[in-house]
Amino acid sequence: MAMIGGGPGAFIGPVHRIAAEMDREIELVAGVFSGDPARSRAGGMAYGLDPARAYGSLAEMLSAERVRADGAQFVAVVTPNHDHLPSARAALAAGFPVISDKPMTATLAEARELAAAVEAAGLPFALTYTYSGYPLVREARARIAAGALGAVRKVVVEYPQGWLAGPAEGKQAEWRVDPSRAGAGGCIGDIGVHAFQLAEFVTGLKVTELLADLGAVVPGRQLDDDCTVLLRFEDVGFGAARGVLLASQIEVGELNGLRIRVYGEQGGLVWKQEEPNTLTLHHLDGRSEVIRAGTGLLGPDAARRTRTPGGHPEGYLEAFANLYRDFAERLRGGSAPLLPGAAEGLRSMAFIDTAVRASAAGAGWTSLSV
Amino acid sequence: MAMIGGGPGAFIGPVHRIAAEMDREIELVAGVFSGDPARSRAGGMAYGLDPARAYGSLAEMLSAERVRADGAQFVAVVTPNHDHLPSARAALAAGFPVISDKPMTATLAEARELAAAVEAAGLPFALTYTYSGYPLVREARARIAAGALGAVRKVVVEYPQGWLAGPAEGKQAEWRVDPSRAGAGGCIGDIGVHAFQLAEFVTGLKVTELLADLGAVVPGRQLDDDCTVLLRFEDVGFGAARGVLLASQIEVGELNGLRIRVYGEQGGLVWKQEEPNTLTLHHLDGRSEVIRAGTGLLGPDAARRTRTPGGHPEGYLEAFANLYRDFAERLRGGSAPLLPGAAEGLRSMAFIDTAVRASAAGAGWTSLSV
Amino acid sequence: MAMIGGGPGAFIGPVHRIAAEMDREIELVAGVFSGDPARSRAGGMAYGLDPARAYGSLAEMLSAERVRADGAQFVAVVTPNHDHLPSARAALAAGFPVISDKPMTATLAEARELAAAVEAAGLPFALTYTYSGYPLVREARARIAAGALGAVRKVVVEYPQGWLAGPAEGKQAEWRVDPSRAGAGGCIGDIGVHAFQLAEFVTGLKVTELLADLGAVVPGRQLDDDCTVLLRFEDVGFGAARGVLLASQIEVGELNGLRIRVYGEQGGLVWKQEEPNTLTLHHLDGRSEVIRAGTGLLGPDAARRTRTPGGHPEGYLEAFANLYRDFAERLRGGSAPLLPGAAEGLRSMAFIDTAVRASAAGAGWTSLSV
Amino acid sequence: MAMIGGGPGAFIGPVHRIAAEMDREIELVAGVFSGDPARSRAGGMAYGLDPARAYGSLAEMLSAERVRADGAQFVAVVTPNHDHLPSARAALAAGFPVISDKPMTATLAEARELAAAVEAAGLPFALTYTYSGYPLVREARARIAAGALGAVRKVVVEYPQGWLAGPAEGKQAEWRVDPSRAGAGGCIGDIGVHAFQLAEFVTGLKVTELLADLGAVVPGRQLDDDCTVLLRFEDVGFGAARGVLLASQIEVGELNGLRIRVYGEQGGLVWKQEEPNTLTLHHLDGRSEVIRAGTGLLGPDAARRTRTPGGHPEGYLEAFANLYRDFAERLRGGSAPLLPGAAEGLRSMAFIDTAVRASAAGAGWTSLSV
Repeated sequence: MAMIGGGPGAFIGPVHRIAAEMDREIELVAGVFSGDPARSRAGGMAYGLDPARAYGSLAEMLSAERVRADGAQFVAVVTPNHDHLPSARAALAAGFPVISDKPMTATLAEARELAAAVEAAGLPFALTYTYSGYPLVREARARIAAGALGAVRKVVVEYPQGWLAGPAEGKQAEWRVDPSRAGAGGCIGDIGVHAFQLAEFVTGLKVTELLADLGAVVPGRQLDDDCTVLLRFEDVGFGAARGVLLASQIEVGELNGLRIRVYGEQGGLVWKQEEPNTLTLHHLDGRSEVIRAGTGLLGPDAARRTRTPGGHPEGYLEAFANLYRDFAERLRGGSAPLLPGAAEGLRSMAFIDTAVRASAAGAGWTSLSV
Repeated sequence: MAMIGGGPGAFIGPVHRIAAEMDREIELVAGVFSGDPARSRAGGMAYGLDPARAYGSLAEMLSAERVRADGAQFVAVVTPNHDHLPSARAALAAGFPVISDKPMTATLAEARELAAAVEAAGLPFALTYTYSGYPLVREARARIAAGALGAVRKVVVEYPQGWLAGPAEGKQAEWRVDPSRAGAGGCIGDIGVHAFQLAEFVTGLKVTELLADLGAVVPGRQLDDDCTVLLRFEDVGFGAARGVLLASQIEVGELNGLRIRVYGEQGGLVWKQEEPNTLTLHHLDGRSEVIRAGTGLLGPDAARRTRTPGGHPEGYLEAFANLYRDFAERLRGGSAPLLPGAAEGLRSMAFIDTAVRASAAGAGWTSLSV
Repeated sequence: MAMIGGGPGAFIGPVHRIAAEMDREIELVAGVFSGDPARSRAGGMAYGLDPARAYGSLAEMLSAERVRADGAQFVAVVTPNHDHLPSARAALAAGFPVISDKPMTATLAEARELAAAVEAAGLPFALTYTYSGYPLVREARARIAAGALGAVRKVVVEYPQGWLAGPAEGKQAEWRVDPSRAGAGGCIGDIGVHAFQLAEFVTGLKVTELLADLGAVVPGRQLDDDCTVLLRFEDVGFGAARGVLLASQIEVGELNGLRIRVYGEQGGLVWKQEEPNTLTLHHLDGRSEVIRAGTGLLGPDAARRTRTPGGHPEGYLEAFANLYRDFAERLRGGSAPLLPGAAEGLRSMAFIDTAVRASAAGAGWTSLSV
Repeated sequence: MAMIGGGPGAFIGPVHRIAAEMDREIELVAGVFSGDPARSRAGGMAYGLDPARAYGSLAEMLSAERVRADGAQFVAVVTPNHDHLPSARAALAAGFPVISDKPMTATLAEARELAAAVEAAGLPFALTYTYSGYPLVREARARIAAGALGAVRKVVVEYPQGWLAGPAEGKQAEWRVDPSRAGAGGCIGDIGVHAFQLAEFVTGLKVTELLADLGAVVPGRQLDDDCTVLLRFEDVGFGAARGVLLASQIEVGELNGLRIRVYGEQGGLVWKQEEPNTLTLHHLDGRSEVIRAGTGLLGPDAARRTRTPGGHPEGYLEAFANLYRDFAERLRGGSAPLLPGAAEGLRSMAFIDTAVRASAAGAGWTSLSV
């Protein structure tokens, strides 16, 4: 694996590295950790790389790695959003499969361009919608698909954070509130999109319409930091399910509280990212079951994605690693059908784009289409 | 206390009786438990009343009790919503103070009429918005009023239930889904209004605008059973706080999950009705505090409304009793300023009315005024 | 009901009064609230009693109430432990059924004397082991009796408190650390005995042997404030179940954390007093169920002891009221088989006595017999 | 790193591999995965090793790796307990530092022998007491050391599991119930020892005496599967703290519920392995604080041992990796003072040995000495 982005001070670069290498199917061997060659080299040394393979530009890396016998076999894009398109396009053009951080790009137009590039290249392309890698998220999806809830009627998905309640300071915060680097969406593009992807992933249903109310609460902020989005899902024969998506970065005391509740005719289901090893299933007759990761109650897909027995907590890094495990499977020619790719990326960008535009216009219900 | 409603099979009648009598300041002595004299008498006997004081009609009760030396001193109205106005009006007209179950009436027009009657009578009038009786709800209100969160920015109030996910069967369910008895609102009038009242009560802020999306999810249902309402609160100088109100009666597995989260510039606060003896307070600097009922950490209003030391759970009946304690205080001439009355009732009815109309019309943001 | 004890400043007197009256089958009509007639009268007025019925001594009350047409029909003893025997004995001798706070008496010898007096009087006698009144404790007992866990193998019962971690100050604390009023046991007699009673109640098994390690942790304290007791239960054919009982009053931050876990061949079960409306049931095949009070999943005994639908928290006062409901049933001639009486009281006193003696002697396993 | 043990079907081998490699300071390059050369090779291939470096015996590996320029620099011992001594001794003798799974050896005598070998070799030696690697365990230790609780008075440490409630089947279970492979302790040596080490680690106090009651509950089991051990800690000037250690493998429904509560004069502290990212701190004045991993509230040692911001759950593998990070630091000449080594290993073995002997003899309080 070669990486672009993720240099010193970055949060997500080391996360990609750990996740990619966790199952020993992938190894980070090269990277562009800064546009400044000396800083990139410093970044490479922090990862323990051969200094010669810490490049000063993507172009340089792609041409060098392409010709090495032991060259990188794919590129991980972990730069801020505005760079996703150029980096991914260049890597694909050079023949490298790409795994990229979400969201797909900074704008919907860019996402369409990238989707076309993926299509043209015919190469694997994946997006690290981390939360879809959690074993119990997969279990939730599998149970709903198998009819455990009956027809889905209602989805409540929330993603509360509080870290941007004060002024946005530090490397992580600054680019997220800057439209030139984050794109048109603030909170909606940073975390709202995770909630959207999780809702579609778990239910297996597509959102067809939304009503968005995005606010920039902290004085002086240009991008939204608090979002409410009402959702309607496609009608698969039992009426269109209703949904609510709440995402915020100004809820003091909330750390990374992504959670989803899905209700159907026959039951309900609850999962929370901060307690990821527990899934609660409610039945119409009043029974409630608690399903724990690592136990014999999990279906095959979830079971294959835990590394320890029940009671040994697995978390964010392991969920992330599950996406890399899927990606490795796809590189080997497998299908890894649950790994998010260009189609999910396009949907997510359409979600951000539609929500931002509809909210700004004070539009009511607005259809969501790719 | 004389009661109208609450006969055999009712849930809320016995609750009023227990709550009223818990602190031994009030005693149930008379009632109209059915329009049928024999059934009313049976109801009275179930409560252990003197059979002569289980009346067949309100008029009969009011004239009889008025002239007894030991006559009832106020009337509790616990009938379905459509009866609240006539019963309360008649009691007030006969000189009896009234405490009534919520919502105030079946329609906003009726509420205005009742508010005028209360005004004209000059008698105490209270509404049992139960959840505002919980000690830690009062503590939350007091802390916010004292500035613990700084300016309020965001409110999330939820009231999930699941008991109407299937067909509405039984005495409790049937009238709630019948517009002729429940009024124009289903879920919004039954529980959404509790969430609304709680949000205004805890924050001390009034809602000025709302955007409502009410749905009737269960096939064949005439009234809403699943509600999402976006809120804007009055701007008291720091920007208008944003709010979201979720109420549902089709979320399988949820029992009575009322909960509220309030976020301000300096902190956040979480309270949940099903774990009512705990209040969590988050500070901007990362600290989180857990405040438990019955401990020395509570302010005077909350402290006076617990009956046991910390760790001895108090619940719904005790919260309800706190409203009756306030009512008794008012009957004795005290102010009991936190007890909801006609003003709160009018606001609540305006909330239901506005939400129902705005949702039906597909209107966007709609101003809320009494 | 007539009460002895529970005067101004007492915690448990008002609790008995609320609990007794909650279901309107019982009414407090008389009492001895102090040995000083004036203070007793003040106590009676605080309860709203007829001043003539707030007596200055038990003897006076018994003779007066016995001859009134509307005289009290039973006596509630809520004095400190050393007074339980004389008060109960006198009341029984005067023909009054007795309900008494736990523990039965201050010493085992006294308990034997009182048990004999109960036997001789042939009158109802009950002890308010409050926690056995919780609906889900009764559900736990019923499920274990029905074989839900298979043969019981292990019991862990804990009762942590922290309020005596500092110096014992105030009316509640002082008598509890004074051997002349509390008896030979401190923590073991105040709360350890509740844990013991709960363990026998829930499992339906009797403790046959114990190994006790009681400590007086706070400097200068004469009675134990921290207890560990190992238990062996009677062997009903599958081996003697093992048990651990932990009780402490010096665990800072713990309020009233009584909890019990029972494990058998086929399952496990967990209940916690501070979250009393939830019972968790684990099955050997990995499934875990959460059973909530007020739902249709409860058996008849537990169901009859909730007053509100699921999700409306009931707590300590309601559990206490369930014991008075049982007592009322017994006064009417019913069996109320789960209400603790003299036999349970004797066992509890034998537990305290054996634990105190065995610990003081540094004895190992010691048999427990009444 | 070279590994002995951890072949196909093992749970702990892959855990060591992931943990060792997580921070990219260590790489697994060689191993003995079976005594059968072909099976060992298969094991090596499962890890993606050079087949030439999957050896058929430890002796073979040590001599081969010692002379390679890129040879392993230390040996990880992950075999069953009875093999810990011979493997570690041989590796040390060959000049390799050793990191070994716990417990140190199968018997105390062996532990003494190994401690002498470590001493003689003058090489780094560490034991993977995993739970001491959790950031919030280190925070707990640091806070207690800094006096947050005042003098420690009471420790309750529990380690409940349920997976051996039925017959012991499968590779993981079989050796644990076999005295010839597990040593004299069953549950006490498998998990009780973790609880013991955690108690000493967190409090910084040594256990001086114990009273053990070990039982073999499942019919036919030779080793203990349910343990209660009373503890006394050294008196550092404020009285000897009291302790209780509960460990069980027959508590159905418990997965891996290690948890510890420590109470002092001024406060209390609670940590639970299954919710490892939260530490609760209680103060004598009634305040309770919740401290979450990854936030600014953590001290330097804990802060350095998280890899993601607060709200991104880290778990068992990350805690394990923290021990390897410490070990790497020690290999580089650093002190890594919190990494358990031979001294802790000896204490742990003395604990197992004393508990097993004292319980079998029915001895009461027995002193614990190395």
